[in-house]
Amino acid sequence: MTGYPKDTEEYLRQIYRGRPCLITGGLGFIGSNLAHILVKLGAKVTIVDSLIPAYGGNLFNISDIRDKVHINIADVRDPHSMNVLVQGMDFIFNMAGQVSHIDSMIDPTTDLDINCRSQLTILEALRHHNPTARIVFAGTRGQYGRARYLPVDEDHLTIPTDVNGINKVAGELYHLVYQSVYGIPACSIRMTNTYGPRHLMKNSRQGFLAWFVRLAIDGEEISIYGDGSQKRDFVYVDDVVRALVMLLADENTVGQVYNLGSMEPVSVRQIAEMVIEIAGSGSLRLIAWPEDKKAIEIGDYYSSYEKIKRDLAWKPTIDLREGLERTVSYYKEHKEHYW
Amino acid sequence: MTGYPKDTEEYLRQIYRGRPCLITGGLGFIGSNLAHILVKLGAKVTIVDSLIPAYGGNLFNISDIRDKVHINIADVRDPHSMNVLVQGMDFIFNMAGQVSHIDSMIDPTTDLDINCRSQLTILEALRHHNPTARIVFAGTRGQYGRARYLPVDEDHLTIPTDVNGINKVAGELYHLVYQSVYGIPACSIRMTNTYGPRHLMKNSRQGFLAWFVRLAIDGEEISIYGDGSQKRDFVYVDDVVRALVMLLADENTVGQVYNLGSMEPVSVRQIAEMVIEIAGSGSLRLIAWPEDKKAIEIGDYYSSYEKIKRDLAWKPTIDLREGLERTVSYYKEHKEHYW
Repeated sequence: MTGYPKDTEEYLRQIYRGRPCLITGGLGFIGSNLAHILVKLGAKVTIVDSLIPAYGGNLFNISDIRDKVHINIADVRDPHSMNVLVQGMDFIFNMAGQVSHIDSMIDPTTDLDINCRSQLTILEALRHHNPTARIVFAGTRGQYGRARYLPVDEDHLTIPTDVNGINKVAGELYHLVYQSVYGIPACSIRMTNTYGPRHLMKNSRQGFLAWFVRLAIDGEEISIYGDGSQKRDFVYVDDVVRALVMLLADENTVGQVYNLGSMEPVSVRQIAEMVIEIAGSGSLRLIAWPEDKKAIEIGDYYSSYEKIKRDLAWKPTIDLREGLERTVSYYKEHKEHYW
Repeated sequence: MTGYPKDTEEYLRQIYRGRPCLITGGLGFIGSNLAHILVKLGAKVTIVDSLIPAYGGNLFNISDIRDKVHINIADVRDPHSMNVLVQGMDFIFNMAGQVSHIDSMIDPTTDLDINCRSQLTILEALRHHNPTARIVFAGTRGQYGRARYLPVDEDHLTIPTDVNGINKVAGELYHLVYQSVYGIPACSIRMTNTYGPRHLMKNSRQGFLAWFVRLAIDGEEISIYGDGSQKRDFVYVDDVVRALVMLLADENTVGQVYNLGSMEPVSVRQIAEMVIEIAGSGSLRLIAWPEDKKAIEIGDYYSSYEKIKRDLAWKPTIDLREGLERTVSYYKEHKEHYW
């Protein structure tokens, strides 16, 4: 359509230039990085965020593009706001969510309201007010639970080990049903561990790698459960948001679900050691598994990204060392806005 | 433990005699049939039901055992009631639900409240007030969606075609997570089409076979979409409730999910013809698919019951002809309580 290969910035610019895009959770980690790439591609970006203090929304995340985006404070659980906000949008990046696994066990109904009920609210808003908008759901590897085989592909059973994973399963399935029944052009991406600038760094509830980075920068001790040998995959946030804009740029992704994945999995211990080395500070300690965390621990886990590579030519481009160097450098510079 | 083979009534009587059992949705179709078998086995049965007019609760369903059960009118969405009602129970048959696929598309958030949120309410009640009670979740073949292969076993992917199926997926997964994380001894059964006495017969929203039976008894025309060649499996309700009591009688089923299934699948057209023949009245007409129903139609579907046969020696014992004869005879006799 545009003459450029689909994995190039020129192609994406032709798709997104001047087009209205809505990002739910757009002041959070992935949402705000997405806002940056969309602004760069020339899109008209509207951010919806509730700025609930415990979650990841942070106005500093978009301070450098503040005059290029429209910010609308609202909660995705509110049908009245969503009915208005979806109108006129061409692309909807549905990133808002409660992302803490531990919190989902402590307060399962709040997780349900945000990760299930609000998805129905958004989809009903689209169905009644903008049924042709492209929408992508922010899924997670937590939908799979323990890996029955590795790497985990999109045909793996989805048997989560916590309430958050279950609500994400339901949230994604609503999108697929609204696609097949009402023709709303939805798709889903199942992200694995995402890391990089603009993460919530105030506590450890939204992923351990960001917390390792904070502890190392502060010269503190990183505690690892067990021997830290369980493997994980980590994708730098720039690769993740590029996948998101590629997904909605291509109409062949409608009704589809895609994993993301990394170049190669590493152990939790390896990554802790790498963070300490790059930060030039911090130390490592191995401790026994706490009961509440052990119950929802999944063992080795890493994803196959063959499907998105085949369909969209997406692959991770930033290796772990480079990504961690950028990450550590960012937080060292902007620590006061995140700590 | 009891000396009797596990598939015998003597064995089940030794397990259930004098034991407090709670049936949510106990005035509905499967719940009330379950109340009958539990009373017969000597259990102390408490029925919880909201008697919401549009759903399947019907006091006539338990009129013949009215003095042998305790009835508590309450809504499973109400945490205060559930926190009290689960206390002191040994066995909980969690049958309450919104079961209409079409209704789940018209009003998805009500389906979510009943089939997702109330499951968390019940499980939280158990976690805090009775964490050792055995509980079985009433799942459905609708959790699988379209069959990728036949017969569908428990390892089949769960990609429902409607909101009801999604909420049932989530409801079941909550049970499995509360089992693995909190040790609540939960299991799930994924029922296929269940038929027999005590069904809701006022409308066609809770399954087509019951509606065929009503139309045939009334001498009316049964309309079938397309050519009626799509295959289904039907299990007589007595076989279903026997499976439920066998499941909770055996501690090896904790954390497990089981399909039910029939002797052999039949086409929708075949079963309509059989109903007309047995009723001695009614007629058949083939019509084009309505759009709203076609969108959530799943094609051929039948389940494998190999797993429950292997683990519990359960198998269907009542064939379709005998089951339909009993069903037609029941409604002819008690029509005024169901029409």
